Amino acid sequence: MAGNSFGDIFKITTFGESHGKAIGVIIDGCPSLIEIDEEFIQSELDKRKPGQSKITTQRKESDTAQILSGVFEGKSTGTPIAIIIPNEDQRSKDYSHIQDKFRPSHADFTYQQKYGIRDYRGGGRSSARETAARVAAGAIAKLFLKKHGIEIFAHVSGVGHIEAPNIDSADLNALLQIREDNIVRCADPATANEMAEFIDGIRKNGDTVGGRISTVIRNVPVGLGEPVFDKLHADLAKAMMSINAVHGFEYGSGFEGSFMKGSEHNDIFVNENSKVKTLTNFSGGIQGGISNGMDITFKTAFKPVATIMRDQATINEEGQDTTISGKGRHDPCVVPRAVIIVEAMAALVIADHLLKFNAYK
Amino acid sequence: MAGNSFGDIFKITTFGESHGKAIGVIIDGCPSLIEIDEEFIQSELDKRKPGQSKITTQRKESDTAQILSGVFEGKSTGTPIAIIIPNEDQRSKDYSHIQDKFRPSHADFTYQQKYGIRDYRGGGRSSARETAARVAAGAIAKLFLKKHGIEIFAHVSGVGHIEAPNIDSADLNALLQIREDNIVRCADPATANEMAEFIDGIRKNGDTVGGRISTVIRNVPVGLGEPVFDKLHADLAKAMMSINAVHGFEYGSGFEGSFMKGSEHNDIFVNENSKVKTLTNFSGGIQGGISNGMDITFKTAFKPVATIMRDQATINEEGQDTTISGKGRHDPCVVPRAVIIVEAMAALVIADHLLKFNAYK
Amino acid sequence: MAGNSFGDIFKITTFGESHGKAIGVIIDGCPSLIEIDEEFIQSELDKRKPGQSKITTQRKESDTAQILSGVFEGKSTGTPIAIIIPNEDQRSKDYSHIQDKFRPSHADFTYQQKYGIRDYRGGGRSSARETAARVAAGAIAKLFLKKHGIEIFAHVSGVGHIEAPNIDSADLNALLQIREDNIVRCADPATANEMAEFIDGIRKNGDTVGGRISTVIRNVPVGLGEPVFDKLHADLAKAMMSINAVHGFEYGSGFEGSFMKGSEHNDIFVNENSKVKTLTNFSGGIQGGISNGMDITFKTAFKPVATIMRDQATINEEGQDTTISGKGRHDPCVVPRAVIIVEAMAALVIADHLLKFNAYK
Amino acid sequence: MAGNSFGDIFKITTFGESHGKAIGVIIDGCPSLIEIDEEFIQSELDKRKPGQSKITTQRKESDTAQILSGVFEGKSTGTPIAIIIPNEDQRSKDYSHIQDKFRPSHADFTYQQKYGIRDYRGGGRSSARETAARVAAGAIAKLFLKKHGIEIFAHVSGVGHIEAPNIDSADLNALLQIREDNIVRCADPATANEMAEFIDGIRKNGDTVGGRISTVIRNVPVGLGEPVFDKLHADLAKAMMSINAVHGFEYGSGFEGSFMKGSEHNDIFVNENSKVKTLTNFSGGIQGGISNGMDITFKTAFKPVATIMRDQATINEEGQDTTISGKGRHDPCVVPRAVIIVEAMAALVIADHLLKFNAYK
Repeated sequence: MAGNSFGDIFKITTFGESHGKAIGVIIDGCPSLIEIDEEFIQSELDKRKPGQSKITTQRKESDTAQILSGVFEGKSTGTPIAIIIPNEDQRSKDYSHIQDKFRPSHADFTYQQKYGIRDYRGGGRSSARETAARVAAGAIAKLFLKKHGIEIFAHVSGVGHIEAPNIDSADLNALLQIREDNIVRCADPATANEMAEFIDGIRKNGDTVGGRISTVIRNVPVGLGEPVFDKLHADLAKAMMSINAVHGFEYGSGFEGSFMKGSEHNDIFVNENSKVKTLTNFSGGIQGGISNGMDITFKTAFKPVATIMRDQATINEEGQDTTISGKGRHDPCVVPRAVIIVEAMAALVIADHLLKFNAYK
Repeated sequence: MAGNSFGDIFKITTFGESHGKAIGVIIDGCPSLIEIDEEFIQSELDKRKPGQSKITTQRKESDTAQILSGVFEGKSTGTPIAIIIPNEDQRSKDYSHIQDKFRPSHADFTYQQKYGIRDYRGGGRSSARETAARVAAGAIAKLFLKKHGIEIFAHVSGVGHIEAPNIDSADLNALLQIREDNIVRCADPATANEMAEFIDGIRKNGDTVGGRISTVIRNVPVGLGEPVFDKLHADLAKAMMSINAVHGFEYGSGFEGSFMKGSEHNDIFVNENSKVKTLTNFSGGIQGGISNGMDITFKTAFKPVATIMRDQATINEEGQDTTISGKGRHDPCVVPRAVIIVEAMAALVIADHLLKFNAYK
Repeated sequence: MAGNSFGDIFKITTFGESHGKAIGVIIDGCPSLIEIDEEFIQSELDKRKPGQSKITTQRKESDTAQILSGVFEGKSTGTPIAIIIPNEDQRSKDYSHIQDKFRPSHADFTYQQKYGIRDYRGGGRSSARETAARVAAGAIAKLFLKKHGIEIFAHVSGVGHIEAPNIDSADLNALLQIREDNIVRCADPATANEMAEFIDGIRKNGDTVGGRISTVIRNVPVGLGEPVFDKLHADLAKAMMSINAVHGFEYGSGFEGSFMKGSEHNDIFVNENSKVKTLTNFSGGIQGGISNGMDITFKTAFKPVATIMRDQATINEEGQDTTISGKGRHDPCVVPRAVIIVEAMAALVIADHLLKFNAYK
Repeated sequence: MAGNSFGDIFKITTFGESHGKAIGVIIDGCPSLIEIDEEFIQSELDKRKPGQSKITTQRKESDTAQILSGVFEGKSTGTPIAIIIPNEDQRSKDYSHIQDKFRPSHADFTYQQKYGIRDYRGGGRSSARETAARVAAGAIAKLFLKKHGIEIFAHVSGVGHIEAPNIDSADLNALLQIREDNIVRCADPATANEMAEFIDGIRKNGDTVGGRISTVIRNVPVGLGEPVFDKLHADLAKAMMSINAVHGFEYGSGFEGSFMKGSEHNDIFVNENSKVKTLTNFSGGIQGGISNGMDITFKTAFKPVATIMRDQATINEEGQDTTISGKGRHDPCVVPRAVIIVEAMAALVIADHLLKFNAYK
């Protein structure tokens, strides 16, 4: 109810504050006999960790995952997998200036009002640092999905006004390589360069900018998702909207689809070598809340990071007018690091629904 | 797990198929001593029911709610409130032509694959008829929220390419009256006329069109929503994406916010007569997943209805090519009736989070 | 949270008051393609219904189940199965004398305090009439379990001071026939006669008496139950303790086992024709919370019915001393009818855990 | 679903194996502003830890709790409280002899069958070492309940054939002192001595013995517990049955009540100085599943520890006959250490229901 868990069968619970001793996650419900490849988990964390490039925060965290339970001789045992990631580079003093002030468009005000207390250091629990725990859990979900041939690929498709062209997603491995070859994590190299320059300019100006991430999930069997409330795309929506800074979600034709006519939008079924396909995929791989075997596609919109390196008016805990100056170490644009968080949450949703699906096989 | 329930404390479970004996809902967790105004419940159902105007389906259903339990001498007792809505105008024969064919962009194919059986009559469980049960439950949630002064208002802000101008939402009751005075349920009369004509043209052409609904929730106390996974907007997103035909959700600045800079997007706190407000509301009334006391605003995008009055290619259950012709009684555009469904789901989310919030008061 | 649901995957939600329009249940998560044998469901309800014999309440209810959804052409479709059982023989006037008085050892006082309102007629929601809905749902769970060869058998093993001898449970069908041949539902005919006479004497004396029910579940595969909190016997305990009037639960060796030594109590594993068995079954078929393939055995203790045909001192809603006289139609001993409720709840627990188990197969 | 969580609003999730790096717990939903007294938490763990006396296992574990999150400046913040307890005295070699054998009446066989893999060292996840995490969480629940004046007291009321006399429970603090003055944790000193001698004799004989724990919960407000499935005693039953080795649970009159008549068993309401009481308390403080303000009383039965210092026949993973010899460090009787586990689980149930209750206040 306090909302730190996600999933029903493949379920995670995260904990930890930005400047506490550690953050972490318990994964409950991971099937047994999954090979837990710790190098892979670390490589996923490395894609999210701070300090990767000039356009990410300069906080230095190795984000080293320690597995405390649930793994025996390299394999999952079916019992809860607990992972902790110690915090290393806490500079809590950086935050003394916000101890009793509410940063604009942050969670300082709402946390204080809700709980009557808050760990103000680095935003405490509201910090996006929490998402490292999700990435660790998502890595394990990916290892499970891999056994079933399911692939997940996300990339930065928009930064501010810059929009990447539609990419050919036939070969996700090739796209992954392109994506990881640039600091923005866009699968179109030319756009990536443009974005990187744009973000760097924004950063030098003490400002921040929003962006968009596009995702495709491939090889999902027909039948995942529960009709009515737990539709597959409804759970994906909740997963994505739970990521810090996300303000919008659409799948398949999305908002654009609401401008279209039925005669344009309907996906015609065809039988291609004994496999049912649709000629178009405005449905985004999901019909009636249930996967239809086509690629699942969705897009997520991130607002600009709220911490800017400028003076801003605000109020303090006593409700008095005051000014807050931009300090601390922050990202000018969150989407390059968020790509791996989006993938992690997508993996968790699919893993959970795959197990639900299996219950009835 | 099978996903026919929504909410944790204020929880509903719906049942029923389009052409079965009845549809209905159990509301479990409604506080006791709420006056259950049956006329209000019926008036809400009337806003969703078919046959309201020339631009809605001509199926004739009175959608009469019968309360079976949980109410004693006009008040809720704290025990489950069961409501059934008998189906009256089933013309199941209308559907014999789709018995073994999969309608494009419908849930016929995925249901058949998932369950190995489906009630094909009118789409069975996948029919939007299920949402009548949500509206009945939402009406009770509204009666509860009314005691706390919380108001919810939705209207059609877009149909196809037609977009309503931003409306002044200071007086929601006045807007409600305007909205109910036109068959499209748009709060801008001029746009409403344009939309109605457009939809009617679409209908005459045997086609359908998508649309958008904008919602505002007012007087929500500061503190609703659970940080991390059960953020208030994440639960709203799931609620909205669970409505038939919804393909997109955004709150506050939404997708547009992802084009903005932090310096433009930040909402500055001010203290206005001892009440904390923000000068702008790009946050959509939610910060860190928790309500901040400002209006909660979000938008929902609906794809065009998949049933069109035209011949379409498809396949049958044996995987053979076939043709399907448009029959049955359907809406040319779903948003006029969906307004009340959006409000109902929003009411359910807020009611649930209000009770969660109370648990810690 | 309001606690009217049971189960995670095979989940039921019940509703209804003793003297309302109807009681009922939604079964969400029943697998598709189960043949829904309505005669069987009715025959189960008939075993619980009032008025069966001189030692049960004389209220006349046909307890006719109406299926409203989730069944198509005789088979479950995977969507929620809603069942309602209309109330027929409400004599609400019988209860006007308790309108503002709290019956001793009933739920009148606690309901009134918790909710500030109560449907006093026949105990409202606290009436054991609610269990008819469980029996209907349990019947469907049994139909599902039958496909897997799982059998459940309960019988009255004790009434007051009368204790049935241990019965040979090799042939459960034979026992079932013996049990149904007597009005007490004890599988030992001689004891059954003794019990029937004893209960009738109690009844004539305007009094009531408690009793015990013993249950065996056979052919449960190895592996059901989740270690730690959702141990199979912990879920059985909760299921049984949720039945009206149950005050005690034990499985396997039970309380008696707490008097024993480890050297007496350990169940030795043997391999019998490639099937692992244990020489004794003090574990009651469950080890570490997980079924081990042996018979699952447990016992449930019921307190005497609180309504007695005598005058009793009590207080009224104003807290004043008053007297309450015994009226209404009640059972002198609840266990004969409770046998089928115990079986139903056991079936629901096993069905739920079987689906959980399947999720990982 | 994998069952490592307990509670709905005040919810815990435990992790860890007997011989892994650490065990631990996440407490999600603890109210904010609770003073987290770490000394108290440690003192509770000390009551459960091994090596306390000659009649407990000689494994040496300091059971030192480390709080990783959710506490700021000594107070709970409303975010998840993660606690880890590192394992220190792992002698995994002690367990090589059971690597491929199934110990009688242990969970080795069922875990192996369910998961296809098991951490055999010390029983892995099935070890009662997991309960240390529950005790840490229970300590925090107690700190919360203390604010509401709620007291919980358990003691050993039976060991094998030795049964403590009924104790006067008017002064729970005095009883606590008596209980902690003896190694058995029985609140009757004479019986405690007898029990201690008896257990030591059992231990010297390489055997083990079962026992019983009686609990009283005081000052619970009227109204806790949800009728129908989540009755307060049903949740207590599940909590208790989820503790390793528990085979039986009863509340109020328990099994004995099933031998009684209604005229003997009914608890008569009286108004004592404007407070409603009952003259007797066969209801165990719970009526209709809801607390009535009287003491909540229940008893729990523990089977004898399965590990005995004797040779026993069993089978190995290949299904072949073999012999297993008693090794490792184990308790001859589990109840002296289990007292604190029972209290912890009771505290968790009451804390959870108190928050549910508050949601509707």
